[in-house]
Amino acid sequence: MPAVGNKSWAIAEGYIPGASVSADPALVSHEAACILNAGDRDAQLSITIYFENREPAGPYRVTVGARRTLHLRFNDLVDPETIPRDTPYASLILSSEPVVVQHTRLDSRNPNVALLSTIAFSCG
Amino acid sequence: MPAVGNKSWAIAEGYIPGASVSADPALVSHEAACILNAGDRDAQLSITIYFENREPAGPYRVTVGARRTLHLRFNDLVDPETIPRDTPYASLILSSEPVVVQHTRLDSRNPNVALLSTIAFSCG
Amino acid sequence: MPAVGNKSWAIAEGYIPGASVSADPALVSHEAACILNAGDRDAQLSITIYFENREPAGPYRVTVGARRTLHLRFNDLVDPETIPRDTPYASLILSSEPVVVQHTRLDSRNPNVALLSTIAFSCG
Amino acid sequence: MPAVGNKSWAIAEGYIPGASVSADPALVSHEAACILNAGDRDAQLSITIYFENREPAGPYRVTVGARRTLHLRFNDLVDPETIPRDTPYASLILSSEPVVVQHTRLDSRNPNVALLSTIAFSCG
Repeated sequence: MPAVGNKSWAIAEGYIPGASVSADPALVSHEAACILNAGDRDAQLSITIYFENREPAGPYRVTVGARRTLHLRFNDLVDPETIPRDTPYASLILSSEPVVVQHTRLDSRNPNVALLSTIAFSCG
Repeated sequence: MPAVGNKSWAIAEGYIPGASVSADPALVSHEAACILNAGDRDAQLSITIYFENREPAGPYRVTVGARRTLHLRFNDLVDPETIPRDTPYASLILSSEPVVVQHTRLDSRNPNVALLSTIAFSCG
Repeated sequence: MPAVGNKSWAIAEGYIPGASVSADPALVSHEAACILNAGDRDAQLSITIYFENREPAGPYRVTVGARRTLHLRFNDLVDPETIPRDTPYASLILSSEPVVVQHTRLDSRNPNVALLSTIAFSCG
Repeated sequence: MPAVGNKSWAIAEGYIPGASVSADPALVSHEAACILNAGDRDAQLSITIYFENREPAGPYRVTVGARRTLHLRFNDLVDPETIPRDTPYASLILSSEPVVVQHTRLDSRNPNVALLSTIAFSCG
């Protein structure tokens, strides 16, 4: 299968709710970058996180294997620093190989679950 | 009407919740690829499903008739294998004719319904 | 202001829930094509509706004035025929002038409100 | 980091619900344009708001700093005029520098929270 997608993606929306209706990992409020690497080489990703009132954080390093998907929770990023909850942010994802990126949030504060999702912006 | 769309589409997000608030088919938790074939020839689709920790599944074969739409539930794909529930996946859809693909999930675990939708990524 | 957008748009997902939590028009289950005509000429739109098991319906004729938006509810289309509820469909929108189209659904069956939205697919 | 994105964006959907389940600012019904300026120069934005039955409002002037994101709530725009609640609108965003724009709404009328999000339409 040929590689599909692009090597640079932006997600302008980002917000990890600090509260959740449930401690069930599937229902904890979370925000994810879903990444598809359909190609035959592992993709090395570098993620930078932008904020409203401070310099960016990162880069965060992530690998998505060949012919694999990764549903990366921003909640789980800890190196070089945790992403603060209840704080607006945005992200820029650079990849060594073409990938496809989709942004999804599950918000379970209310206490009902709300979902959003969108294809990320492909920067080329 | 001329055919519109593209022949290759990716959906980087995929997740079929294993629980539902209702057994009503309209309200069962499901994930769909909504496909429009506005052209005058039937479109033969080949779908590959990617996972986080194993090789891809498929191809799944689907036909979308000329001047027809198909709201294909990933829940219903069984040949060559069922897509596991509560498991992250992604999909790549190749078509013999130009089509348009949109991704939608109805999640009724909570027990309230949550929805997400996005245009898929057009690979050309 | 120059006209922005394109003259051909597709929405592959379509479904008007037949039930609603409320008779309040703002909270009735509905599906909308939100159209922006930022240009200085009125846009004449022609909408075709595609189904899973029958030939397409339409064309439906709609005008979006110069420098105006229209949040067109598919629920309100009646000429040449009403769009059936609880039935999958898709739509193709052709415009005489460049416009921008976004697809939104408010689903109030559950009885809680769920929302989805996505930019439509620009066919050029 | 090079600037990414485009200088002209449209959001065809717009609607600020007039009611909310909560006075908590995080849970007040709101609509936002999330903007990422990954470049090294401040971006000067000019926003025009389009309506169904009157001439456009604006321009609204907003700055997004270099290497910053801004989650701009349309609720907060007051100069030259407030955006009316419970009223369909659309927006056109012009920027002096390349940016990325994503549209998000949190609707807490029901009284449960519903979310929608989509990448905006890049006009070039």
